[in-house]
Amino acid sequence: MTQSRPAVHPVDPPPLTAAAPPRVRLKDVQGMPGTGGGLVLRLLQFIFAVISLSVMATTSDFSSVTAFCYLVAAVGLQSLWSLILAIADIYALLVKRSFRNTVAVSIFTIGDGITSTVTFAAACASAGITVLIGNDLHYCNLNPCSRFMAATAMAFLSWFAASPSFILNFWSFASE
Amino acid sequence: MTQSRPAVHPVDPPPLTAAAPPRVRLKDVQGMPGTGGGLVLRLLQFIFAVISLSVMATTSDFSSVTAFCYLVAAVGLQSLWSLILAIADIYALLVKRSFRNTVAVSIFTIGDGITSTVTFAAACASAGITVLIGNDLHYCNLNPCSRFMAATAMAFLSWFAASPSFILNFWSFASE
Repeated sequence: MTQSRPAVHPVDPPPLTAAAPPRVRLKDVQGMPGTGGGLVLRLLQFIFAVISLSVMATTSDFSSVTAFCYLVAAVGLQSLWSLILAIADIYALLVKRSFRNTVAVSIFTIGDGITSTVTFAAACASAGITVLIGNDLHYCNLNPCSRFMAATAMAFLSWFAASPSFILNFWSFASE
Repeated sequence: MTQSRPAVHPVDPPPLTAAAPPRVRLKDVQGMPGTGGGLVLRLLQFIFAVISLSVMATTSDFSSVTAFCYLVAAVGLQSLWSLILAIADIYALLVKRSFRNTVAVSIFTIGDGITSTVTFAAACASAGITVLIGNDLHYCNLNPCSRFMAATAMAFLSWFAASPSFILNFWSFASE
């Protein structure tokens, strides 16, 4: 029992497998719902859609052209949708939370896809008719061409502001 | 020197950290580039775009309307793009590989986004003018309305076939 004690200094075992690294997620890119950039995009969509709606609705004879009626309906839908999501963004900013659950992001993505497609289709149809009246037939003395052009341009701007929202939402949904 | 040798049986160290688990990837969903479904989508886009192009280009007076010229250019671009990607799909199917590198998928996504947006815009503009001529002004006795409608409908069908390609490519790109 007086044997020397073994003088082995075992190497510390390597640490156990660390927890799996957290999934890489897109950070809160400005422009996503619940961020300041997202709110700015929503407000731009809303403002451009409302300007387009009011300019087109105050022309005297928009109701005689199907595409212009469709434009009024489309930018009306776009302005409603953008207003609702702007309110949701303001709420999210006030409580300092961001929308991180899949159901909300999927609803936002689908809604953004539908409204931006409808707005873009209406803007294209109006642009086709405005160019037909103005450039091809030269009827601008009979029609308020400048108002048609302004309403169409505002609808396109609303769509431009809606596209980043849709793409960022879709990206965030796909990378969940 | 006759002391007993230490009889330590060290515990095997735990295995080193296993390789990180492979990233979860969307499997080869039918419709992605390099799959049979993707090839079918490309061929549908190509066929509808070519029908739209030939129907519109054989009307006598399409060149007097800007939107119809734009439709011809847009479905021409769509048919070229779809043909090139159909050939790439056929090659990928023959060598039994799928497109899995980020550069190819990003080029496909951007190209699909541009061509499908251009086709959709042209189809909407043509639809607006066709409805204006047919329903609002009742000029169908003077114009080949049925040909305009057929070309517009084919352009919309080409866009319908292009949308799944774009969405699946974008999804695959975002979840890389």
